[in-house]
Amino acid sequence: MKSNTTAVHPLDAALALEPRGEHRWQGLAGPDWANMVGPFGGITAAQLLQACCLHPERQGQALALTVNFAAGVAEGEFEVEARPMRTTRSTQHWTMVLRQQGQVCTTGSAVFATRRQTWSAPELRMPAVPPAEAVAPERRMPPVNWPSRYEFRFVEGGWPDYRDASEQPDSRTVLWVRDEPPRALDAPALAAIADVFYPRIFRRRGRFTPAGTISLTTYFHADEAALAKQGSRPLLAVATGRRFTLGFFDQSAELWSDDGHLLASSHQVVYFKD
Amino acid sequence: MKSNTTAVHPLDAALALEPRGEHRWQGLAGPDWANMVGPFGGITAAQLLQACCLHPERQGQALALTVNFAAGVAEGEFEVEARPMRTTRSTQHWTMVLRQQGQVCTTGSAVFATRRQTWSAPELRMPAVPPAEAVAPERRMPPVNWPSRYEFRFVEGGWPDYRDASEQPDSRTVLWVRDEPPRALDAPALAAIADVFYPRIFRRRGRFTPAGTISLTTYFHADEAALAKQGSRPLLAVATGRRFTLGFFDQSAELWSDDGHLLASSHQVVYFKD
Repeated sequence: MKSNTTAVHPLDAALALEPRGEHRWQGLAGPDWANMVGPFGGITAAQLLQACCLHPERQGQALALTVNFAAGVAEGEFEVEARPMRTTRSTQHWTMVLRQQGQVCTTGSAVFATRRQTWSAPELRMPAVPPAEAVAPERRMPPVNWPSRYEFRFVEGGWPDYRDASEQPDSRTVLWVRDEPPRALDAPALAAIADVFYPRIFRRRGRFTPAGTISLTTYFHADEAALAKQGSRPLLAVATGRRFTLGFFDQSAELWSDDGHLLASSHQVVYFKD
Repeated sequence: MKSNTTAVHPLDAALALEPRGEHRWQGLAGPDWANMVGPFGGITAAQLLQACCLHPERQGQALALTVNFAAGVAEGEFEVEARPMRTTRSTQHWTMVLRQQGQVCTTGSAVFATRRQTWSAPELRMPAVPPAEAVAPERRMPPVNWPSRYEFRFVEGGWPDYRDASEQPDSRTVLWVRDEPPRALDAPALAAIADVFYPRIFRRRGRFTPAGTISLTTYFHADEAALAKQGSRPLLAVATGRRFTLGFFDQSAELWSDDGHLLASSHQVVYFKD
């Protein structure tokens, strides 16, 4: 397995899982994607999805992905088990487990599906925002590594400045975001970007508290053709909290193509300390 | 295992899983909860959650539940495997599988958590609607059994009347809903109610098409005390679609206590035929 070099995109380096027998892959958690405790949740989600994508029995494309973060993944090797549980005519159901030294760190499930031409319609509409090129890229980055793997152009709700922040009436963030360096969009990249929002409680309270995603679910509305069409241009990403109570909150997010199609809906429940 | 009698509430009958060895339970899919193909997805979700609740190693209360519907459950016996994958100080992560004759019908995962007093705040607000008692219970029921297990008081977006229906600008439904007969709310009951919305495409298109939930995720914001406080009174339930494309759509829902607290957020991706 290669570590990140100038020749390999950091996302591709993270997705370079090595087969280790039936239903099993080996990956490497490196410093490029480090968060406060273990790696950025989005990269773990992408790696679990990637194990399904690489599986020789895989049919169809990603439709749904759920990842449950049980314990931080330590820097170093990990094993992903990705097992097709049931394949029907149009869907394939997967169960995944990520382990280190035999201990379960992450569990997940995925559904892959064969899409067909049908009646189609949007319902949620993309918010009216300035185009990406009219929004300056954020230069400040939090003191962890993974945000440098993305370009953030915040339209609303950027990183809180805790020195003079106060409670906000809502926790909404709207931004243009793409991989940094730019990289063509595919399902694992989209799965990672679905977790690109800092925890909504930071914004809502205007202060930092230890927090971490417990469970993340993403629904993919885009087939490979739609992802290819988006290419490496920024996506519009929107996230808002729903309720904060008793040490947990949930947030819902949408990822839009720059021509206004909802590429993915994503939801997560997050632990916070106090 | 008892079948439904006047003495046993139909939900409790469905939740009466019998232990069958380590991590395994046996349940019965009966006619009370029948949908078009197999049982109502909500009852299957409740049964998978119930297996975790009954497990002797269970710690904490339901926080997140994901259920993937791979194949219809036939009337008759089924086996649920519910396995604690990792237990940390505040969370416990579960993987579940429902099988019939050794074939996987449903997979799932759950997170249970220990809640603590913390800073808390709502963000999403309950829509302003008339109280349940001001809304007439729906008398028409679709030609399947499970809807008779609930009382529906539609504020907006009731069962479409396909004879004179037409495409709608949105797919939103708002209703007061409770178990029928009334039953005190608990986490499995709430897990079932999270799936109580007919597929959003029926409303949006104003016509019927074969459709079925593929994956359902519910986040629980209410601890046992909050569920007990709600008791058997109707919940306010709201659901809206997000995008319909290439044979699949997603919908997001909220379940509110009658005093305005978000008890659960729920999301699903749904297959539709044409």
